[in-house]
Amino acid sequence: MNGLEHLDRLTAALARLPGVGRRSAERMAYRLAWDPDGALRELLEALREAQANVRLCGRCGGLTVAADNPCRLCTNPARDQGVLCVVTDPSDIIAIERTGSFKGRYHALMGIISPMHGEGPKDMRLGSLMRRIAEEKFEEVILALGTDVESESTASYITELLKSKPLRVTRLASGMPAGSGIAYSDPVTLSRAVKGRRAS
Amino acid sequence: MNGLEHLDRLTAALARLPGVGRRSAERMAYRLAWDPDGALRELLEALREAQANVRLCGRCGGLTVAADNPCRLCTNPARDQGVLCVVTDPSDIIAIERTGSFKGRYHALMGIISPMHGEGPKDMRLGSLMRRIAEEKFEEVILALGTDVESESTASYITELLKSKPLRVTRLASGMPAGSGIAYSDPVTLSRAVKGRRAS
Repeated sequence: MNGLEHLDRLTAALARLPGVGRRSAERMAYRLAWDPDGALRELLEALREAQANVRLCGRCGGLTVAADNPCRLCTNPARDQGVLCVVTDPSDIIAIERTGSFKGRYHALMGIISPMHGEGPKDMRLGSLMRRIAEEKFEEVILALGTDVESESTASYITELLKSKPLRVTRLASGMPAGSGIAYSDPVTLSRAVKGRRAS
Repeated sequence: MNGLEHLDRLTAALARLPGVGRRSAERMAYRLAWDPDGALRELLEALREAQANVRLCGRCGGLTVAADNPCRLCTNPARDQGVLCVVTDPSDIIAIERTGSFKGRYHALMGIISPMHGEGPKDMRLGSLMRRIAEEKFEEVILALGTDVESESTASYITELLKSKPLRVTRLASGMPAGSGIAYSDPVTLSRAVKGRRAS
């Protein structure tokens, strides 16, 4: 009994966070354990605050507070009600909002189709997406998913679902990222940039 | 008000963990926020368990449980009472114990001398180290600190403090890590390996 057995659960909980492996979770757990009045208490209180205040918007799935549900992005009449941007998760909404390049509505799927991880269409917010499309009369649905294989096949799946609907289905442009050079681009990115070339 | 302001504190608390930068802390906070019934609750409960059960040993500073203080490493009569291994923090004790190559006592300093971070000798458990050395009559003190500049100057500082005491002060061997090749070693490691060469 050296206290380590009480850290196994903490290590496991930390290892669930994005980008945290088993070894780093262990280091974090030890650090929290030997600084119980500083780092551990602060993290506990911050988690309680988040648990008490942060909610997911019942409509778009984005982050909001208990008092604003549906969230302000969903209820703001100044935003374009004809365009729906479909993303994987709530942090994608934050990333797109930061660019200021989109002023429509959002819908977070809370996942992608990933047979490798046992996740299929029923694990995502697809039913509510179809309901919103029927009720909110969008003219365009932008599939702002990732460019990995799983995200691309999720986009194809949704495109197929929406085929018969009277709306445009689009995807984000794929090509060279800002500030990069031809010689440093990977072959897939480069061939997509060539394929998607536009008038100069 | 989109709930993000309630995640600032959580982001800051996560960014205090070892190896976690601002950007990864933000990603973790978002993930926790949109999985409040899974990841967030589990982390909260694991932190509560650690807070309730894990303690730091009042003697060596290592991890222990409330019922064992001083810890079992300090009170085990089968361990060598003549050798004290001084480390930076409690996780170093776990790492050395895993090797099975040391059977003496430990003392965790809980820090190193780091003028850059405003940390001096008074921020470490040096007073209790000197008391233990006076009371516990060690024959050898092993300074098992890191090999970066700050750890080395901390080791030199402690060596100077212990100069007049009737004991041997040693440091860990510095040289080639296991499984590495000459061509891949950095110049500092390699020159230390040459300087510290031993009979074959």
